[in-house]
Amino acid sequence: MSAPTKVVLAYSGGLDTSIILKWLQTEYGCEVVTFTADLGQGEELEPARKKAELLGIKPENIFIEDVREEFVRDFVFPMFRANALYEGLYLLGTSIARPLISKRLVEIAAETGADAVAHGATGKGNDQVRFELSAYALNPAIKVIAPWREWDLTSRTRLLEFAEANQIPIAKDKRGEAPFSVDANLLHTSSEGKVLENPGEEAPDYVLQRITRPEEAPDTPEMVEITFEKGDAVAINGEAMSPAAILTRLNELGGKHGVGILDLVENRFVGMKSRGIYETPGGTVLLEAHRGIEQITLDSGAGHLKDSLMPRYAELIYNGFWFSPEREMLQAAIDKSQEHVSGTVRVKLYKGSARTVARWSENSLYSEAHVTFEDDAGAYDQKDAAGFIQLNALRLKLLAARNKRMKG
Amino acid sequence: MSAPTKVVLAYSGGLDTSIILKWLQTEYGCEVVTFTADLGQGEELEPARKKAELLGIKPENIFIEDVREEFVRDFVFPMFRANALYEGLYLLGTSIARPLISKRLVEIAAETGADAVAHGATGKGNDQVRFELSAYALNPAIKVIAPWREWDLTSRTRLLEFAEANQIPIAKDKRGEAPFSVDANLLHTSSEGKVLENPGEEAPDYVLQRITRPEEAPDTPEMVEITFEKGDAVAINGEAMSPAAILTRLNELGGKHGVGILDLVENRFVGMKSRGIYETPGGTVLLEAHRGIEQITLDSGAGHLKDSLMPRYAELIYNGFWFSPEREMLQAAIDKSQEHVSGTVRVKLYKGSARTVARWSENSLYSEAHVTFEDDAGAYDQKDAAGFIQLNALRLKLLAARNKRMKG
Amino acid sequence: MSAPTKVVLAYSGGLDTSIILKWLQTEYGCEVVTFTADLGQGEELEPARKKAELLGIKPENIFIEDVREEFVRDFVFPMFRANALYEGLYLLGTSIARPLISKRLVEIAAETGADAVAHGATGKGNDQVRFELSAYALNPAIKVIAPWREWDLTSRTRLLEFAEANQIPIAKDKRGEAPFSVDANLLHTSSEGKVLENPGEEAPDYVLQRITRPEEAPDTPEMVEITFEKGDAVAINGEAMSPAAILTRLNELGGKHGVGILDLVENRFVGMKSRGIYETPGGTVLLEAHRGIEQITLDSGAGHLKDSLMPRYAELIYNGFWFSPEREMLQAAIDKSQEHVSGTVRVKLYKGSARTVARWSENSLYSEAHVTFEDDAGAYDQKDAAGFIQLNALRLKLLAARNKRMKG
Amino acid sequence: MSAPTKVVLAYSGGLDTSIILKWLQTEYGCEVVTFTADLGQGEELEPARKKAELLGIKPENIFIEDVREEFVRDFVFPMFRANALYEGLYLLGTSIARPLISKRLVEIAAETGADAVAHGATGKGNDQVRFELSAYALNPAIKVIAPWREWDLTSRTRLLEFAEANQIPIAKDKRGEAPFSVDANLLHTSSEGKVLENPGEEAPDYVLQRITRPEEAPDTPEMVEITFEKGDAVAINGEAMSPAAILTRLNELGGKHGVGILDLVENRFVGMKSRGIYETPGGTVLLEAHRGIEQITLDSGAGHLKDSLMPRYAELIYNGFWFSPEREMLQAAIDKSQEHVSGTVRVKLYKGSARTVARWSENSLYSEAHVTFEDDAGAYDQKDAAGFIQLNALRLKLLAARNKRMKG
Repeated sequence: MSAPTKVVLAYSGGLDTSIILKWLQTEYGCEVVTFTADLGQGEELEPARKKAELLGIKPENIFIEDVREEFVRDFVFPMFRANALYEGLYLLGTSIARPLISKRLVEIAAETGADAVAHGATGKGNDQVRFELSAYALNPAIKVIAPWREWDLTSRTRLLEFAEANQIPIAKDKRGEAPFSVDANLLHTSSEGKVLENPGEEAPDYVLQRITRPEEAPDTPEMVEITFEKGDAVAINGEAMSPAAILTRLNELGGKHGVGILDLVENRFVGMKSRGIYETPGGTVLLEAHRGIEQITLDSGAGHLKDSLMPRYAELIYNGFWFSPEREMLQAAIDKSQEHVSGTVRVKLYKGSARTVARWSENSLYSEAHVTFEDDAGAYDQKDAAGFIQLNALRLKLLAARNKRMKG
Repeated sequence: MSAPTKVVLAYSGGLDTSIILKWLQTEYGCEVVTFTADLGQGEELEPARKKAELLGIKPENIFIEDVREEFVRDFVFPMFRANALYEGLYLLGTSIARPLISKRLVEIAAETGADAVAHGATGKGNDQVRFELSAYALNPAIKVIAPWREWDLTSRTRLLEFAEANQIPIAKDKRGEAPFSVDANLLHTSSEGKVLENPGEEAPDYVLQRITRPEEAPDTPEMVEITFEKGDAVAINGEAMSPAAILTRLNELGGKHGVGILDLVENRFVGMKSRGIYETPGGTVLLEAHRGIEQITLDSGAGHLKDSLMPRYAELIYNGFWFSPEREMLQAAIDKSQEHVSGTVRVKLYKGSARTVARWSENSLYSEAHVTFEDDAGAYDQKDAAGFIQLNALRLKLLAARNKRMKG
Repeated sequence: MSAPTKVVLAYSGGLDTSIILKWLQTEYGCEVVTFTADLGQGEELEPARKKAELLGIKPENIFIEDVREEFVRDFVFPMFRANALYEGLYLLGTSIARPLISKRLVEIAAETGADAVAHGATGKGNDQVRFELSAYALNPAIKVIAPWREWDLTSRTRLLEFAEANQIPIAKDKRGEAPFSVDANLLHTSSEGKVLENPGEEAPDYVLQRITRPEEAPDTPEMVEITFEKGDAVAINGEAMSPAAILTRLNELGGKHGVGILDLVENRFVGMKSRGIYETPGGTVLLEAHRGIEQITLDSGAGHLKDSLMPRYAELIYNGFWFSPEREMLQAAIDKSQEHVSGTVRVKLYKGSARTVARWSENSLYSEAHVTFEDDAGAYDQKDAAGFIQLNALRLKLLAARNKRMKG
Repeated sequence: MSAPTKVVLAYSGGLDTSIILKWLQTEYGCEVVTFTADLGQGEELEPARKKAELLGIKPENIFIEDVREEFVRDFVFPMFRANALYEGLYLLGTSIARPLISKRLVEIAAETGADAVAHGATGKGNDQVRFELSAYALNPAIKVIAPWREWDLTSRTRLLEFAEANQIPIAKDKRGEAPFSVDANLLHTSSEGKVLENPGEEAPDYVLQRITRPEEAPDTPEMVEITFEKGDAVAINGEAMSPAAILTRLNELGGKHGVGILDLVENRFVGMKSRGIYETPGGTVLLEAHRGIEQITLDSGAGHLKDSLMPRYAELIYNGFWFSPEREMLQAAIDKSQEHVSGTVRVKLYKGSARTVARWSENSLYSEAHVTFEDDAGAYDQKDAAGFIQLNALRLKLLAARNKRMKG
């Protein structure tokens, strides 16, 4: 790879990415473009502008964008159509944000004539893979720089020395090491590392960033009604809202009631296990409600196929293959299934749990006439069941007869 | 099908199966053998003996058995090794009990020289399918009689008339119709029908049979530690227990803390949707804990394969194919994966939720050396990640270049 | 089911469906509409018109249609995009024709105000299921009449008696019983039953209807070049042709060279095994060529996903679920994958085999630069492979270390 | 990785691995142990011993072994139980040999106190991955040396110079470059590279190493009968033979009749496409026959599950994950299915094709009584089919009614 001349950096404004910014300038002597995205992580973005300017970035090279609506509409919602859970439990909050950032990095590179992009993910994690696979899938000629895999700033001490030597301001609370590492966006907050590294020890309460401890949540349950159209949430308690507004509102509700905490040891794509504490308040409620509306609007053939495809779909997103033909194939199948997934679900929130308690829809496939214990007026002929069972049993009978014959 | 001469009836001792008993005698003029099983449904069995005698069953034709250990050891536990959930949510509490009952019916038929078995499941549900597929798979020559599909006792009134006409005792509370129908065993209690038939209306609180409402559960969380060996729970809080004893204890703990309530609209195998309220207190805790121990002892290749096989495995059990070659094939694969799934999980129970908070094992695959944010002493070379990403990206790059070329 | 008043019958003009026609008139006293389709079975259709008239069908109730283009374009080609093979070998030639016939039956019922459709499939086979599931999926209120499951004409003798009693003309060669039963359309000819019923005995040569015995095929191989666009064949040897024309031409070529004979014992949906001799000359060549063009235009992610979905897709078609949401979901995924499956394949035909020997495409993903044994000018850095392997190996190393530790 | 002190080299005795041998001695100054295996590649092994001695290998460090029986029994046969085909066509002839070689390398390393193993696979192919994943899975502490990824002997000229400078004998025909590269073992011969690199050009006839061109094969078909027990071939034409003897005999028969030629463009695990000509004469016959015996002895539930698992199983073997928990899980499932796969298949070989024409078994599940067109004496009640269809149709009817309602 020849040296880059102009690099678009995913820049948070924090210490680490500021060091990367400076390192790119000094190591490669290249022009740096910064991209700072509001994904709903709950931080002010404007300080990042000032910091970038301070570090010598030209105003026209500073990109600060609110991408929350795009994030929820084009990434989070399509993923929730699939009821995606990685390893049975993880709602993929970090994974799903990476392709969007890469997409914007590559687009800004095209706009600004940059030949490279850079990110601040380490060489041990999944995020490097997600950033880079997305970037390469969108521009096969792009260079990707991952300073954490390249440089020799391998200890906290050396990082701080580099920062000081390069006049990078260091916030007081960044002098010492954080007790764990945090990533956040509108869908979730993850915490990992350091005090959390032993999966046999409970995570301390102070790890929680956005969800009230269930024990401190309100003593009174709260109901929330979520309305779906074609598989996507479109209203809360009857009020139509934008995708990002919906997720924001569900985060408030779920967070207030202690919903969405997950303590997980997961398998990273790069081969080792890691332990994380995930907080996904709104997403947890949304998944429950989406399952609820599918229960009455989705046929069993479609639903069972979806369930069987889901683990692979979730794995693709986790591994960084959002922009891959196979994810797009699965998405086409999943989206096809959602055409009639419209209606409303009532979810009960209480001290850590979110449970569907009612759901209704004009599209409902539920037929009281067929299922009723009462007289069904001929909707269903119970005698049909005899034939159904006989033919389903036929191969089992032939097997049993064969096996008996062979033993006898 | 020629007329049966001797029938083994799955007999609960209740009004409905007593009517069936009498109907078999009168309709087919055949000898009836009763089989009453203690599956942990929480009812005394001896009254069933007296009732059977009262209805003219010879003592040697009355079989009353406690099959709880067999149920948990040979059916529930193998199923939990798979983390089986039907349609993403249902723990298959009813489904998994049916094959065991059929197995005993068929065995008792062989012992007593009976040529038929009979059950009290209706023609609209899944249970008829489960009973009959299991019976045919175990004895292809057996006759199965399903009175509900045959007789003309199609209303409550006619049933009671038949009972009265045949001197079948009717408990006072059985005169009126129950507001919903209940099935129970050691794994779960399900309620459905009547007041529950509208999935858009919340289930009334009085439906709950064995789980404390979360709002009334203790205000203090409780920890429980479950120890696994080869995928099966073997001890609770350090105390070794039999399979049934473990599930009983977990039921107490989960039930006390409001854990395991599910309001579900599901797809029946016979083609319609139905709504049920499921209470699976111990099973819900057990599934959480099993996932927890797999997190540190199961490799990602094995875990992801299991996850992808699970929906099909669960569907097979739901549909009644426990005794089928494909269920046995999947079981062989799942059991193979559990060889090292041993260790202990701590689960926190609190007002409706059960969450893994810690897990440890001698078999752990978690490597702090590899995952640590600290210096890993060379356990992992971050530069390897660059090659890993490049080769994973290669096909995506070739695709992107092709697609660009074709557009250009 | 109330009695039908007007029935659309799938009518071939042959003896059996003529008997059905008359039986419908006499048994139900209902008006009959006949539908005779040219699916490429190689029979004249006009005689069917005369026969129908002779049996008293009003001219406006006689529908005779050439549906060959629709058959290939909307059914055969979509299926071939999936490389569908049932049980690894069967190209689904009969299965894929049934939904089209049902679709037209239901449409003609709507046009003519009929309330029922009827078909001539027996109660032992798959075709009844395919006809009826399709009909119900397209019109849930339609009645379906399957005379073979209803009537008492259960022997050849009784059928002929009924025909004679009702002045149905009997062709001389229909007096005796055929040595086996044949179904044909543009995609294939199947033969089964009677002399073919013992799967341990070789099928006699005279069974073959449209494929030259390989031993009698030309001694000189012939090349054929098939051009694809978006997964569908569009030209042969450079000549653009309609879908039906393409399949017709490939049938000629394949048939001439002995290609496409299959002797199969398969599992019917209704539970038993059956043995058939299938002749699919053009389809066999087409599948080979489609695989060939996918080899260079389809990415591995897409290709492997397709391969894993295929068995389920094929099973759905075999079982009669063409018009089901899950087949449509899979089709959406498959079609998504075919966007760039364009190019040309050369297939060599010779005495029973069809082998891809060359393929080329503007869309090719094959990169000689990457794969070459020669100097690749930096297209691929072999050192990346080391990192790729290390990270793929990491979990296996951790497993091996754990297992060694536990034994030691 | 610290420098190795003793290396076990997969040594063919040819020029390339001789150069590697010498390079290991000179580059690492380490002791070299050679392992030369007879996998049925059709070469004498004793010359390898002489060459190794000539290059200074101590006699006790020279391991020459005939592993053909182990290869077929423990690797080829288990794989054929799965009917494994990579990307629909490839019989995995190269892939399946690698784990066995790695296993012996690692075992010999343990025996001889070596700390490393080395192989002659390049950095562009799959074989490096297969060798190394297998080695690491069997001994996580082993070092693996892949000279082709390390050294600077990147052209034919430099290789020959190195050979000359180190007194390595160069056979005359190795002076020039081979027109393509060949790998062979008892299961197959693969040819790739150089003249084969353009997938749009037909492979020249002289590429074929072991299969007669179909045009030159005998004009008379030949029948072969293969007997299976529990899924493995045990006899040919009634004569019991060892696994390797069976494959050898089938190779002779298939090769004589032009059976088993495949021209494939496949997706390598390392990310690019490559084109190969594969000759798998015996394996092609064996796969056909195995499918044939499964047709009558395997139930549809087991067979369809196998078919759906096969693509993943084949991909695992192709990618080098033979020694992985997920391959072992799948093997457990597959082996479970083979318990009754016993019987005999007759296959007709003729000028390039191998077709099953008859099969029979004591274990047969084929029931002429059920399938017959003749009177079945009540084995099957055609009326059962009506109920079977009605319940399978129910969800489709509910769907159609819903969709109609929503449009209306």
